[in-house]
Amino acid sequence: MTRYEQLAQEITRQIGAGVLRAGERIPSVRQACAAQGVSPGTVQQAYQLLEDRGLIQTRPRSGYYVNATFKAAPAEPATSRPPRASTVVDVSELVFEILESVKSETVVPLGSAFIHPSAFPLAKLARFLGGAARGLDPRRMVADLPPGNRELRRGIARRYLGAGLTVDPEEVLITNGAMEALNLCLQAVAKPGDTIAIEGPAFYAALQAIERLGMKALALPTHPREGVDLQALEKALGQQKGQQKIAACWLMTSFQNPLGSLMSEEKRRALVALLAAREVPLIVDDVYEELYFGRARPKPAKAWDSQGLVLHCSSFSKCLAPGYRIGWALAGRYAQQVRRLKMTTTLATAIPPQAALADYLKQGGYDHHLRGLRTALQRQQGSMVEAIGRDFPVGTRVTQPQGGYFLWVELPAQVDALEVHRRAAAKNISVAPGPIFSPQRRYENCLRLNYGQPWTPQVEAALATLGKIAEDLC
Amino acid sequence: MTRYEQLAQEITRQIGAGVLRAGERIPSVRQACAAQGVSPGTVQQAYQLLEDRGLIQTRPRSGYYVNATFKAAPAEPATSRPPRASTVVDVSELVFEILESVKSETVVPLGSAFIHPSAFPLAKLARFLGGAARGLDPRRMVADLPPGNRELRRGIARRYLGAGLTVDPEEVLITNGAMEALNLCLQAVAKPGDTIAIEGPAFYAALQAIERLGMKALALPTHPREGVDLQALEKALGQQKGQQKIAACWLMTSFQNPLGSLMSEEKRRALVALLAAREVPLIVDDVYEELYFGRARPKPAKAWDSQGLVLHCSSFSKCLAPGYRIGWALAGRYAQQVRRLKMTTTLATAIPPQAALADYLKQGGYDHHLRGLRTALQRQQGSMVEAIGRDFPVGTRVTQPQGGYFLWVELPAQVDALEVHRRAAAKNISVAPGPIFSPQRRYENCLRLNYGQPWTPQVEAALATLGKIAEDLC
Repeated sequence: MTRYEQLAQEITRQIGAGVLRAGERIPSVRQACAAQGVSPGTVQQAYQLLEDRGLIQTRPRSGYYVNATFKAAPAEPATSRPPRASTVVDVSELVFEILESVKSETVVPLGSAFIHPSAFPLAKLARFLGGAARGLDPRRMVADLPPGNRELRRGIARRYLGAGLTVDPEEVLITNGAMEALNLCLQAVAKPGDTIAIEGPAFYAALQAIERLGMKALALPTHPREGVDLQALEKALGQQKGQQKIAACWLMTSFQNPLGSLMSEEKRRALVALLAAREVPLIVDDVYEELYFGRARPKPAKAWDSQGLVLHCSSFSKCLAPGYRIGWALAGRYAQQVRRLKMTTTLATAIPPQAALADYLKQGGYDHHLRGLRTALQRQQGSMVEAIGRDFPVGTRVTQPQGGYFLWVELPAQVDALEVHRRAAAKNISVAPGPIFSPQRRYENCLRLNYGQPWTPQVEAALATLGKIAEDLC
Repeated sequence: MTRYEQLAQEITRQIGAGVLRAGERIPSVRQACAAQGVSPGTVQQAYQLLEDRGLIQTRPRSGYYVNATFKAAPAEPATSRPPRASTVVDVSELVFEILESVKSETVVPLGSAFIHPSAFPLAKLARFLGGAARGLDPRRMVADLPPGNRELRRGIARRYLGAGLTVDPEEVLITNGAMEALNLCLQAVAKPGDTIAIEGPAFYAALQAIERLGMKALALPTHPREGVDLQALEKALGQQKGQQKIAACWLMTSFQNPLGSLMSEEKRRALVALLAAREVPLIVDDVYEELYFGRARPKPAKAWDSQGLVLHCSSFSKCLAPGYRIGWALAGRYAQQVRRLKMTTTLATAIPPQAALADYLKQGGYDHHLRGLRTALQRQQGSMVEAIGRDFPVGTRVTQPQGGYFLWVELPAQVDALEVHRRAAAKNISVAPGPIFSPQRRYENCLRLNYGQPWTPQVEAALATLGKIAEDLC
């Protein structure tokens, strides 16, 4: 065994023994050289080996971190197998029931769709907001109707440059959060009765939009780490007859909600090519694009879009400024249509918050904030996965996504997730049960859990309680 | 002639001679007593007489003001006579063409839908916004999802109390401006293919909403001062067959856009009763409700609604805070449905602006601001009506609404308003041509002009130019 392999084995042991825990930084190359009396090259080789084995990862300008891996890590769920026919969606009522049943402020919000607000620089944003509002030319209050504040649109376009996507600021339409952007895009590309291809499971807001607009959903098989199955999509696209014909896709390429899957660059390119060949528009909900744990921000699928068929939607709500309700759409060839839909539905997005975020992007320290947020999320994921491995029934499977803040938990087949929800709610714990992520209310034994909150004894106890509830239902 | 009649005649002469102009305050009772050597009772009788004759009006805690009446005032347009059949709407494209053709900041915005931003307390609002954002409990960023900030909803409900309407704050849903409120309400009460009764002419955004949702419009005869013709509505409601059946009404009871008509209390009561008897919901767009020139805020139609069938929508965009995009819906029996529609389309309204307006309502001096704004608008109306009387072709008719900031100008029949728009745009003046207010692009010889801006030599010259353009087309 070479020296670098010995060093790698030593660190592996430390991780296995819990000396180094998921999300923690391991010694820098310099520190390790000094401590072990070896050369920087040896340390680098050892770290490369650990990275290749998936035990650690590099973060630029930050160092090396332990991945969420465990001695007794629960297994990963299998690729989903939704029914092959498109279907009318009937789940909105259930979603509202679930969401409205756990609205108390004292609830442990494992079912929440949001990161805990304490993770955001809200005090700093407030200062930017006050300053921006005072400095605004009053004429902007009328002139910044759609598409929105010019500086903010430029700031958003600039950030995409860093992710390998060139965007004309003129294409950026500011919306009331990504939710509005997605809804407008869906209305622009499809009409009542049309079939929309989605992931299985899919974010319930996509299902609600499809249901509200009288469209149909076709859920595609989806791998929990790699995203939607392109062969299945290709097959479905081939069935170009009648109502089954796919009018558009609505997918989450990065850290899909609820699975957390991340499509590779190769897969993104293939997806865009597949759809371009058939002129099928692709709506991408990319609200978690900034919350990656890997080396760099994933390159948006839109980067391979030469036809204007990709409608990319995102927002600041998940990564910086919840409550500001600032999102955007890059709607490609549908840009004018989407802008006009915006004008006739909500007219415009509030002007002062746009100006505040434009200023913050220039000088607020966004990248610094994001680095801290990603580190915290990764650490919290590790703690929650570990707790699930410890507290949940044998046979439980769980994802370990490379970004975002959701775990998808597959309980033993006989456990009814809606019953878990009811019993947990009675104990002041919210969960997001699987059926709200399916047009046909499937995934009856699955839960989406949110790790976007500090790992406290209260949260740890809630996980133990959930495990007990699941055991009782086995 | 009694002493008080002599005094009234004297003031009438001063108004006729332009010594006292529209919107100006006339001497107080005490000042008039001193100046004329008469008793307060005599002055009060004289002022009452002038008020009965429509020459002046009282404003509470402010005094007596000259109405917009003129020696050679243009006549009022007649009640509209739209076609009696409901119709598919096809005007949205034209509306966008018109709106997008005059976007320069140097244009004289007579076609604008907004009051000039200088009329609003934007600096003060900015201070409230900064303060509110700093003081916000971070948890509010998530907790204030629909229906919105509790204090703001209470503040809105309190203001309606003063107008004779009791509202449960729980019914108040905060929206992204009235535009969103109206759109959500329309979706809650009607479906594609349904017929919606509107005023003729109607606000183009209502037409665009009806068009976008695949509904049909039935424009009702409407009096330029008194609003929609209830007999015509009753007749239309009687034709309860097939597609012509009216699924809902969408009306503006106060200072209708573009006519400026104001329905009397008696008429509002009758309207609500008429619709209640047939269980037809009434959407009221009441965004100008605070911009009354009369003695008191008109009592909302919803005050007579015992069935929960009136969906009252309004906002701060026209009277206080353009660009903040804060509106609301009081949706009666449809409240939960509208709230859920909001959740699935834009989720929530930006939180800090809501908190800022809640604070402003408590301590910002809203009533003081509104008094000043109303006085300015009334004065500007007088100046514009006077200019039209002087500069426009013989036979021109114009409204003189008791609130809001729009004039409806009926040019001689042969004048093509779209051509007026084109020629005016070439001279950097925007107008809103009649056809954009009609499902069938009628009102070909009409214009809506905006007097919500300071009366400057530039605006005066623009009116003269418009008059010349119209003359040339006669």
